[in-house]
Amino acid sequence: MTLVARPQGMPRESDFALEEGPVGEPGPGEVLVRSLWVSLDPYQRGRMSEARSYAASLQLGDTITSQAVGEVVESGDRRFEPGDLVLGQLGLQEHAVIRAGSLRPVPGWLDPPSLALHAVGMTGLTAYFGLFDVCRPLPGDTVVVSAAHGAVGQVVGQLAKLAGCRTVGIAGGPEKVRELKELYRYDEAIDYKSENVGAALKEAAPGGVDVYFDNVGGEITIAVARRLAVGARIAVCGQISQYNLEREGPAMPGGYTFLIVARARMQGFLVTDYAHRYDEALPRLAGWVADGSIRWREDVVDGLENAPRAFIGLMKGENRGKLLVKVADRS
Amino acid sequence: MTLVARPQGMPRESDFALEEGPVGEPGPGEVLVRSLWVSLDPYQRGRMSEARSYAASLQLGDTITSQAVGEVVESGDRRFEPGDLVLGQLGLQEHAVIRAGSLRPVPGWLDPPSLALHAVGMTGLTAYFGLFDVCRPLPGDTVVVSAAHGAVGQVVGQLAKLAGCRTVGIAGGPEKVRELKELYRYDEAIDYKSENVGAALKEAAPGGVDVYFDNVGGEITIAVARRLAVGARIAVCGQISQYNLEREGPAMPGGYTFLIVARARMQGFLVTDYAHRYDEALPRLAGWVADGSIRWREDVVDGLENAPRAFIGLMKGENRGKLLVKVADRS
Repeated sequence: MTLVARPQGMPRESDFALEEGPVGEPGPGEVLVRSLWVSLDPYQRGRMSEARSYAASLQLGDTITSQAVGEVVESGDRRFEPGDLVLGQLGLQEHAVIRAGSLRPVPGWLDPPSLALHAVGMTGLTAYFGLFDVCRPLPGDTVVVSAAHGAVGQVVGQLAKLAGCRTVGIAGGPEKVRELKELYRYDEAIDYKSENVGAALKEAAPGGVDVYFDNVGGEITIAVARRLAVGARIAVCGQISQYNLEREGPAMPGGYTFLIVARARMQGFLVTDYAHRYDEALPRLAGWVADGSIRWREDVVDGLENAPRAFIGLMKGENRGKLLVKVADRS
Repeated sequence: MTLVARPQGMPRESDFALEEGPVGEPGPGEVLVRSLWVSLDPYQRGRMSEARSYAASLQLGDTITSQAVGEVVESGDRRFEPGDLVLGQLGLQEHAVIRAGSLRPVPGWLDPPSLALHAVGMTGLTAYFGLFDVCRPLPGDTVVVSAAHGAVGQVVGQLAKLAGCRTVGIAGGPEKVRELKELYRYDEAIDYKSENVGAALKEAAPGGVDVYFDNVGGEITIAVARRLAVGARIAVCGQISQYNLEREGPAMPGGYTFLIVARARMQGFLVTDYAHRYDEALPRLAGWVADGSIRWREDVVDGLENAPRAFIGLMKGENRGKLLVKVADRS
């Protein structure tokens, strides 16, 4: 799947094209991998623009970069042999030849192996470091999460519960909001599509918001900013409400005065800055998934040809769980 | 000086009134103080509004609260005697009866004693804790300061030089910009009234902005946010560009995405949260003033009756140094 046009505002299916090409041969130190599940994530939108972002821009004609779980077909490196399951930046394509050193083995006990793309992978790690390292939650803190039903948000809420916090999830639509409480154990859930978020927060967090894990920005963040408790910490993980705007988003009334009023800290982070600590977090995440402390949900789309439509749906919040593209069955 | 109308947007002189009243008698534990210098500061604007802020709202008819240096006239407490110089929340008035426990003595060696209202007082402390505690500057950091010519900004730049940083000051008008370099030792100075701040920053901080001490918010902060270096720290000290707006201010393009791009931390603070550390900072500030490491400038207005006009000028950036009202001479 390649980028053939830079999206202006919301991406369209015609911005992408599926092209046939030869399957490469792995050289020494390289591995030929067949993709099984490919991950779709909001950060990929940033790469489709030319503007400076935290991810390098794609050029037109480039394969869309993506993390994937695949199966080794042919190996030019003694660390891997055919049939091994691996995690790597395979891109949105059926086969990739890739440096062996850039791949991580997917442990055989991880069931399903696609967990390596979410709860026991990138989105779980994002939740873990964003919450524990950036926000440093204390027992009794009220933790508010936007896009709480998303792949990151669902884990944040459950980690915050493990840390003894009270959790308030914000999502769009009655089905998601019901699942926030029933599936992901949020104490309170707010439907931003049908409720006034400010008024709902006043009720759900009467003592104010101690921690805000922000995946969306925009109007929801403006509403949360008015309800911060003194000493609040905000992790800026994503700003999906802003990625597809063609005009300016809403202004925060008073600028950053809200940070003074609450003596609050707001911090952006990238999970990749914590790469040196993945080995600390992954076994913990795996343990919590295994013992049921972290519940998860996948939204699996079949076939690369359906990836563009699914990605556009992700931008609109239509996915129900971690969005994956199933490319092939395990051999 | 009392508040007789809540300002809508920019305050007007008619929002204030000077009223005559009886001079009180100090009871036990109280002191009658005659004001000598009264401080005018941007935070006072917040108290004039009803909106939630970091300072409690004034009611109509209340005396404008203010820090002042005064002289004890009559004392009902053994800690003070007539003639002592004291620092306290005397308000914009000639005499105040005040609890002795709320006053701090002004040391006899502080020359002039009005320094206790700025470089060796509130604004110096604000610079000290905002820079050293919130921003934690490292040698070689590029430190950008908005309202760099103001009472806080002038100290921030000089403290950052002491810490081995490169400093870039932003102020309005050629005279202030000249003084930023010649008087306050800024390495670079940008005139936001005549220059494109973004382009000027690109030149003045080619490696990006490591520390931003923000006193203003608005368009200047939007320009700085685009130039942050990875790991940048922003202290939100004030947002004066926002205090007198009648409509919404400008929106930050992309919302808080700039914090993700730079993995930056943005933190609001109030100097009063550091009250337990004033005794750490004040002797250091006094020492740096005494040895010439911190240069300072006062803009002294004569007579309480001129305070409203001076305060409005402060809101517009017309002051040249720490704005004080001289109420009386020392007896």
